[in-house]
Amino acid sequence: MSELQGYRGLTLELLKNANVKIGDYIRIFRDGDVFEGLLMPRIELGDSNHIVIKLANGYNVGVKVSSQTKIEKVEVEKKTSEAMVEFKIEEKEGLPTVFILGTGGTIASKVEYRTGAVYPSLSTEDLYRAIPELSNLARIKTSVLFNIFSENMTPKHWSEIAKAIAKILREEEVNGIVIAHGTDTMGYTAAALSFALQNLPVPVVLVGSQRSSDRPSSDAALNLIGAVRAAAYAPFAEVVVAMHEWVADESIVLHRGTKVRKCHTSRRDAFQSVNSKPLAKIVEDKVVMLTEDYKKRGEKELTLKPEFDEKVALLKFYPGFNSQLIDWLVEQKYLGIVLEGTGLGHVGKYCFNSIRKAVDSGLVVAMTSQCLWGSVRMTVYDTGRDLLSLGVIPLEDMLPETALVKMMWSFGQTKNPEKVKELMLTNLVGEYSNRLPL
Amino acid sequence: MSELQGYRGLTLELLKNANVKIGDYIRIFRDGDVFEGLLMPRIELGDSNHIVIKLANGYNVGVKVSSQTKIEKVEVEKKTSEAMVEFKIEEKEGLPTVFILGTGGTIASKVEYRTGAVYPSLSTEDLYRAIPELSNLARIKTSVLFNIFSENMTPKHWSEIAKAIAKILREEEVNGIVIAHGTDTMGYTAAALSFALQNLPVPVVLVGSQRSSDRPSSDAALNLIGAVRAAAYAPFAEVVVAMHEWVADESIVLHRGTKVRKCHTSRRDAFQSVNSKPLAKIVEDKVVMLTEDYKKRGEKELTLKPEFDEKVALLKFYPGFNSQLIDWLVEQKYLGIVLEGTGLGHVGKYCFNSIRKAVDSGLVVAMTSQCLWGSVRMTVYDTGRDLLSLGVIPLEDMLPETALVKMMWSFGQTKNPEKVKELMLTNLVGEYSNRLPL
Repeated sequence: MSELQGYRGLTLELLKNANVKIGDYIRIFRDGDVFEGLLMPRIELGDSNHIVIKLANGYNVGVKVSSQTKIEKVEVEKKTSEAMVEFKIEEKEGLPTVFILGTGGTIASKVEYRTGAVYPSLSTEDLYRAIPELSNLARIKTSVLFNIFSENMTPKHWSEIAKAIAKILREEEVNGIVIAHGTDTMGYTAAALSFALQNLPVPVVLVGSQRSSDRPSSDAALNLIGAVRAAAYAPFAEVVVAMHEWVADESIVLHRGTKVRKCHTSRRDAFQSVNSKPLAKIVEDKVVMLTEDYKKRGEKELTLKPEFDEKVALLKFYPGFNSQLIDWLVEQKYLGIVLEGTGLGHVGKYCFNSIRKAVDSGLVVAMTSQCLWGSVRMTVYDTGRDLLSLGVIPLEDMLPETALVKMMWSFGQTKNPEKVKELMLTNLVGEYSNRLPL
Repeated sequence: MSELQGYRGLTLELLKNANVKIGDYIRIFRDGDVFEGLLMPRIELGDSNHIVIKLANGYNVGVKVSSQTKIEKVEVEKKTSEAMVEFKIEEKEGLPTVFILGTGGTIASKVEYRTGAVYPSLSTEDLYRAIPELSNLARIKTSVLFNIFSENMTPKHWSEIAKAIAKILREEEVNGIVIAHGTDTMGYTAAALSFALQNLPVPVVLVGSQRSSDRPSSDAALNLIGAVRAAAYAPFAEVVVAMHEWVADESIVLHRGTKVRKCHTSRRDAFQSVNSKPLAKIVEDKVVMLTEDYKKRGEKELTLKPEFDEKVALLKFYPGFNSQLIDWLVEQKYLGIVLEGTGLGHVGKYCFNSIRKAVDSGLVVAMTSQCLWGSVRMTVYDTGRDLLSLGVIPLEDMLPETALVKMMWSFGQTKNPEKVKELMLTNLVGEYSNRLPL
């Protein structure tokens, strides 16, 4: 790694002239302002006019330098080793215990990012050092289960995470569990854990970050603080996703695991509750419930059901969709198909024969809507009524992604299609929002 | 049809006692208010405490009756035939001419819904009768191209619509064209027409309705008035979708055809511009542009390119996705695949081999994001860079549905994969919003 990794142009020149390197404690004087902290590397190919430093409070800031901005001096204050001592923090007695389990993604890999290593482990000490606020919230234990980009997660990984959580609950005294996870498929994993971990005694909080912590705009620290606060103090015991509520670094919302999806590629508030309000949000230092319809934390015996069957497909319908795809899934001995139909739950008539064959072959075929918002209602138009009479089951306002995960999970519990249909139509963990309370 | 179709409970009783039937002109007295109009049937299984009447201005209203609401009298004023005469309106000279082409859906089938027939044709006289405002806006010509639920639309229908529009522009003097369309796949058709009809001289406005006009909350009349207004007076000459801006019956927005998708199964404001602002909105009786970046109406020679090739698939990636689906498409001699990847444009590593084989076999493979909002950025993480090096082309902020339609259209123009890639990466009709102006 270069001593000034990622810097170029004007910033590289300034830093070189000051004879500093990544990890040094520096002071930047600019137009009367003084910025003080650890010099951070830049990873992504960003602009050349920001110097990124980690402040004493654990946050990173980008100090803009340009021909308009005069930097009077970049002065080496302390070298890396001494600077790090400053962040060493004692564990406080009497605080709740939170277990942070790393699975990968931007948040796990870079949250204590300081010296340029791209995939450091998620050690407790490093976490406290990176985000000193955590030590006032909880006693943190950490463990790394795996470290993968979340697009590489499969149903097998969901099982592993569920089993790891069950093990922690069996062997450790914890008040809540945080799962650090890549954001790409975090919604799918949240749904999977919701079904696999029923009757939870404590909250399970998935958390990710949309921007790596070496970037001035990183959401990693605030998301992780919010996730730990929820795990430690929230009154609910469900699987949730903790992310920014809005683009500003202000508040964190907690989305129910079965109702959340990533709705933006890059914004910090990419995660949205669909067809329901978020379960709770963090207002100042309190977890405030947004609904009264939730499962409470308490002395409970976890029901672990970690099996998933991958022989379930999600198919999005569109004009020109090839209905032979359905036939192919039948030939491949698939067990079920979740359709992402149009509008209130429709597909073109020319697909009816293939759907009939699939149902006759014993596959469970279920309908969701590619609109994402709103509810499937298959009794309004002929197309919907025809599909119902073919045996397609309507999943109301369940997200297509949650429906896929739930059907994989249902076939993990039983291979009996009738029992799977029954499971699919039962509101198990809040996946239907229009039904009676859980 | 029953004489009081759809009514039940209290409303049925009141109507029976008054000895009226569907189509009668009635007057309802309630708490000092008087409501007057044609008695409409109820089709869907709704509540039992509204009586729906069509007012003289063409709008339907639901008059709530309940034990709290006293109905003093329901009196037969005029019988159907005389009442209809009242709606006869003369065509006004000097107004712009708008051609309304019916293709099906709720709006075409029920907008003049009055006597209970479910699929009446879209005749000019009936339209004026149902929505008298239209006669003050434009001289209307109508024609029914076909009458199908839009989930049954295929790329062949897109071609037919494009050719029909070209014929109208060639043979008639029109100031704008309105396409009445089912809402399920209206977004796909809007994108298809955007590519098929380039260099338009006048606006082409797709319009649908989310609620049939026999329901008190129907959006059909306001949407159609907005569509006709845009077709007649808008300064732009592009393909747009005209629908409610908000749930209230207040304003209509005009979404660019390549940037719009149906984002709710039932709400009146189901259609949303994604990754861009709507092109325009209607404020009172004016079409107000929301961007300066649009193609202007004027004397232009239409470029008709109505061919689409259906050998293109849209595949949504998810954990557990079977990469053999990609192999199957290659075997079936598909020409291209649009992937709906995760986050910034990713799929699991285990799909790389199948993608490589597809590209090596000459298929064009393109990446969009299932997040829908935001832009694909494949240079940020390893997964994206690997996919780029396999030959996957990144489609930035283009909607997956628009990308599918565009690739079908591109292969309709040329079978040369390199030329298709070039077309896909060129901003033709506003499908990329982050690029330079058209």
